[in-house]
Amino acid sequence: MTDLPARIEILEEGPREGFQSEPPGIAVADKIRLIDALADTGLRHVTCASFVNPKVLPQMADAEEIGARLAMREGVEYGALWLSASGFRRAQATPFALRPVVSGSASDTFLLRNNNRTPEAGLHDQREMRALYDAAGLGPGPLYVFTAFGCNFEGDVPVDKVRTTVRNLMEMLAESGQRPTDICLCDTIGAGNPALVRRVVGAVREDWPDVPVALHLHDTRGLGLANAVAGLELGVTRFDSSIGGLGGCPFAGNRAAAGNIATEDLVFLCHEMGIDTGVDLDRAIAAARLAEEIVGHPVPGKVMKAGSLARFRAGATEVTA
Amino acid sequence: MTDLPARIEILEEGPREGFQSEPPGIAVADKIRLIDALADTGLRHVTCASFVNPKVLPQMADAEEIGARLAMREGVEYGALWLSASGFRRAQATPFALRPVVSGSASDTFLLRNNNRTPEAGLHDQREMRALYDAAGLGPGPLYVFTAFGCNFEGDVPVDKVRTTVRNLMEMLAESGQRPTDICLCDTIGAGNPALVRRVVGAVREDWPDVPVALHLHDTRGLGLANAVAGLELGVTRFDSSIGGLGGCPFAGNRAAAGNIATEDLVFLCHEMGIDTGVDLDRAIAAARLAEEIVGHPVPGKVMKAGSLARFRAGATEVTA
Repeated sequence: MTDLPARIEILEEGPREGFQSEPPGIAVADKIRLIDALADTGLRHVTCASFVNPKVLPQMADAEEIGARLAMREGVEYGALWLSASGFRRAQATPFALRPVVSGSASDTFLLRNNNRTPEAGLHDQREMRALYDAAGLGPGPLYVFTAFGCNFEGDVPVDKVRTTVRNLMEMLAESGQRPTDICLCDTIGAGNPALVRRVVGAVREDWPDVPVALHLHDTRGLGLANAVAGLELGVTRFDSSIGGLGGCPFAGNRAAAGNIATEDLVFLCHEMGIDTGVDLDRAIAAARLAEEIVGHPVPGKVMKAGSLARFRAGATEVTA
Repeated sequence: MTDLPARIEILEEGPREGFQSEPPGIAVADKIRLIDALADTGLRHVTCASFVNPKVLPQMADAEEIGARLAMREGVEYGALWLSASGFRRAQATPFALRPVVSGSASDTFLLRNNNRTPEAGLHDQREMRALYDAAGLGPGPLYVFTAFGCNFEGDVPVDKVRTTVRNLMEMLAESGQRPTDICLCDTIGAGNPALVRRVVGAVREDWPDVPVALHLHDTRGLGLANAVAGLELGVTRFDSSIGGLGGCPFAGNRAAAGNIATEDLVFLCHEMGIDTGVDLDRAIAAARLAEEIVGHPVPGKVMKAGSLARFRAGATEVTA
């Protein structure tokens, strides 16, 4: 219990990873409405768009337009994703915050199937991306490891593969004297469980005791929040999540893949356990309902349906009087 | 990690608590199909029906018929629920296993609203029920505590109220020289979180170190399995759950109340963490899909949609070759 952090940071992925897994056609105005609602919750990091090939992901073809039309509020980092030099150059021409991510996959097969890269080619790409970031005067960013808890192609992913993936990227960063802001371990296909989270996070912690660990969790098999608790108990202080549980990875080879853990459910969990998030839960619930309205089908979030416990607590005196 | 049990027992509540929260009209033949499928999974305890007032719960009016038509298999306890002497007498006239439950509510307001009883009247009822069990030659059964983690009427429920509720029932049982088979703490409205589960389970453990603790969890706010993990880590070895996550408590004053934790998700969690359940996960997934087909609307279970990890593990060599 005493290991729980006092506060966590949440990186909101709904407008990016969430909308990216919906069919094309969501209006820019709706995306902006949701991003505004998210910025209004107290979330300080919102990923808004992807600068990727619009032929592959037509859902994200409006990235520039979103950047141009957003009225960005002070204190909120409006971020975007890219996977290549051309994507990064597109992002540079927009008002989005530039978050210099480097990444790798613990599963070689996933990297091959998802990005058509061998581990060596993938690392080479990342070195080139980092050189672009350096040239653009960007400081360190996070280090992402995909499929850190399992893979649809390889099944289980050995912990040593995660360690190797992290080490290769850490050594690459060290070449320019850098350390990442954190190491974010991704349960890309929702294969993790609390015992595995402890093993993998523990191993990375052991290798890199001075680098914070973050978690990017999917709730594909219902263990998303249980895995988050395992992370919290190991002192993980940054999580990626999606409002309403929107989304999922369209490339993970699993059409039933559920989205990230729901932001408002994570906020509820943290607040109930005495962990600050900086997020207003009621506003997050309202944003989740807006997200559901925009996509036009039920989303997985739970607290957005049941409500928080605030009204029971507020009504207690009245009802029992 | 080392505190995790090697094996747990699961009490399946889908045909009872699950179907009870659906609109009336599910055919007896469908109920029996599901119960048969559940018995086929390796589950050893299935609650099949409620002997309650059919005017209040027409969904359960077929309790006798289910009992008469079930072909009960060896090694499976086919149970039923009742709340009163008349319900118990109805159950006695059927082939159902008689599970002599005594129960109380940690929230006085819940007991008043749900059962129209003061705590004193409730305890009196339980003493009378226990006398009936004694007269029928039944040994000890479990002790259930409702609203042990919160209440829609009172909001938070102090841990001391749980302790008092347990103590009163323990003392009542001790009058006839009995101890319960376990103390089952119910998160009736899905208000619990892992820290609270630890506090409440820990307090009951401290008071009654020799009596096993069980958990009856609802996934109303997405924390059901996270709460189960907290229980497992404290050595809880019996859980109630519903196939597919069917159900919910229709009396909890919360129309959005989600059902119990999904049996197959709990089984998946346990197997992934090396805990035996005696349940075949693939068969449990098939039973969850049958449950969804019978109720005719999506149910909350996750693994039934995404599938287990078995096929990824089995396919690993082939795909990566």
